[in-house]
Amino acid sequence: MKLIFTKSSLTKAVNIVMKAVPVKTTMSILECILIDATTNNIKFTANDMELGIETIVEGQIIEKGKVAIDAKIFYEIVRKLPENDVTIETDNNHTAMITCEKSKFNISGRQGDDFAYIPVIIRDKYISLSQFKLKEIINQTIFSIAINDNNKMMTGELFEVQDHSLKVVGLDGHRIAIRNVALDGEADNIKAVVPGKTLIEISKILSSDAESEVRIYFTGNHILFEFDNTIVVSRLIEGEYFRINQMLSSDYETKIQVRKKEFLECIDRANLLIREGEKKPIIITINDEFLEVKIQSSIGSLNEDIDISKEGKDIMIGFNPKFLIDALRVIDDEEISIYLVNPKAPCFIRDKDENYIYLILPVNFSA
Amino acid sequence: MKLIFTKSSLTKAVNIVMKAVPVKTTMSILECILIDATTNNIKFTANDMELGIETIVEGQIIEKGKVAIDAKIFYEIVRKLPENDVTIETDNNHTAMITCEKSKFNISGRQGDDFAYIPVIIRDKYISLSQFKLKEIINQTIFSIAINDNNKMMTGELFEVQDHSLKVVGLDGHRIAIRNVALDGEADNIKAVVPGKTLIEISKILSSDAESEVRIYFTGNHILFEFDNTIVVSRLIEGEYFRINQMLSSDYETKIQVRKKEFLECIDRANLLIREGEKKPIIITINDEFLEVKIQSSIGSLNEDIDISKEGKDIMIGFNPKFLIDALRVIDDEEISIYLVNPKAPCFIRDKDENYIYLILPVNFSA
Repeated sequence: MKLIFTKSSLTKAVNIVMKAVPVKTTMSILECILIDATTNNIKFTANDMELGIETIVEGQIIEKGKVAIDAKIFYEIVRKLPENDVTIETDNNHTAMITCEKSKFNISGRQGDDFAYIPVIIRDKYISLSQFKLKEIINQTIFSIAINDNNKMMTGELFEVQDHSLKVVGLDGHRIAIRNVALDGEADNIKAVVPGKTLIEISKILSSDAESEVRIYFTGNHILFEFDNTIVVSRLIEGEYFRINQMLSSDYETKIQVRKKEFLECIDRANLLIREGEKKPIIITINDEFLEVKIQSSIGSLNEDIDISKEGKDIMIGFNPKFLIDALRVIDDEEISIYLVNPKAPCFIRDKDENYIYLILPVNFSA
Repeated sequence: MKLIFTKSSLTKAVNIVMKAVPVKTTMSILECILIDATTNNIKFTANDMELGIETIVEGQIIEKGKVAIDAKIFYEIVRKLPENDVTIETDNNHTAMITCEKSKFNISGRQGDDFAYIPVIIRDKYISLSQFKLKEIINQTIFSIAINDNNKMMTGELFEVQDHSLKVVGLDGHRIAIRNVALDGEADNIKAVVPGKTLIEISKILSSDAESEVRIYFTGNHILFEFDNTIVVSRLIEGEYFRINQMLSSDYETKIQVRKKEFLECIDRANLLIREGEKKPIIITINDEFLEVKIQSSIGSLNEDIDISKEGKDIMIGFNPKFLIDALRVIDDEEISIYLVNPKAPCFIRDKDENYIYLILPVNFSA
């Protein structure tokens, strides 16, 4: 095999497929990137058996062939090569010679026949949206999923397509994050739970370009993202997702409007007084014209008033400040509405059109 | 006590004194910043008993007094306050109330009488140079000192003043870094060994301004840096520093000139093939018109030629690439001269005027 790339196209491709290389694995072949130039295209593939990424790389095929190279060392070498054409050539022992200007690396490679190609997906049902939008809604919800996998379903996000709209949901038992996006064109109804890890990795390789499209295909067991010259395939999490509709209610006893930045900065300050691992709530007291944020911990206390406009009853309610901070950070609106029922019931931060809904459970506190 | 600051002057002062707050200590008072407004100045002090920093802070004294506040929480609170005037007020229990706009923090403080003030230094012998220059020569030498303190002397840097010139030296048994700076004005001859930690912390608070001056005072046991409204006092390391002059020789058998960037990038690439903890040398072979960098490790091999101009004998010599990288990174010259004797003797990278000298010991290799 003998291939010639520009350094920039090589760097870009390696950066993309690296996202599917597992940090730890017992199958050493998975630590490799497969370079496949057996056809008229050059394809790079990495696959951790749950998530697989394949990208077509611009380059010149002098001699067809394929080889699997240790991903980490290949990535580091490519990154440090001079900005010029890079030649990758293999011999009969699968040693890869990487040459750029006067630099000649020899790295032992593998034949690649035992490499697990990413599964072939029948590209049938799909939706399409901009790369920017997909990246955005992932970032605006992913913090709400559970980190440990005591409950596997909570480590994923629901992707639900219904009535030309995509709903993305993450939850961890204490909070729910929901984003709704209108879709162009026809779309079948779909429900799938996508692993959080897949979404985190894909959000890193999506461009922030509102003009370029990503197509998302669904099958019973897999989801496939297609954009630029790249496809990302991931297993889905099996089983039925939580019935969130019954947790969402539009009834409320208190509604307030508050400037987001001011509220966020105040809670961020209150959060300073909570030591790592300590479970201290902040207490929010809502009166007619302002809300008061209060916290008292082993470190000290904070007291701060914020102007609001209010409808309904006065209320005093406790929250884990981290959950409020996470939600407020990803809301772009300058002014937000918060809906409350009572000190035991969830509060909702949502906009009028329900493009976003953040549900947060309150915590008990001793007044 | 009641004081009023702008947020920016408060932030700046806290950032400066934080550098002398120990990460770990058994004396909890050292975890505090002392705010002393008993005179007509407001002074902030921190002191880890080896390194002490005192800075005069712009602010308004409404009521005189002093208090010691936990440095870490004070730093975090100040950072997150709104951009406005900040009032710090204490009550009889030394509780500090920190107020900014509608935000009111209460943090328990301490009386501060048991706080260890920084030692009073008789300001007699001194030298002066620009903050930029001091910061620069620290950064250009500090990487050469030893990290573990099996040999205490190696964890410091020699500051030697002689003939209106300051020489700064760091060494770790495998290499020596030397920088010489001409000084303006009179200066007594001085020799002092300054703890590396002191120099690392002070380089973080020096400005990069070539116009503003720092004065350095020396006593038998201490060094004092004075700049802007800040003084930094540090103990010296006791004992006699290594006699480095006998290690420096201007004899050589081979002299080469090479473009620094090209050489550095090549060695940086070679370094990729060395696993953490592995002790593989790179082998440099010097011929008439080029040098060849070679490395062979468990990961793979690299071979690269670099154009040079050469005087003297051909030579083949092995190095720990990290030592070459460290030295090359801090040399600004585009073209550098390297002097070699034989494969067992140190190599020198130095400029004609000896503003810098980097000595690096070679390592054995099997050809």
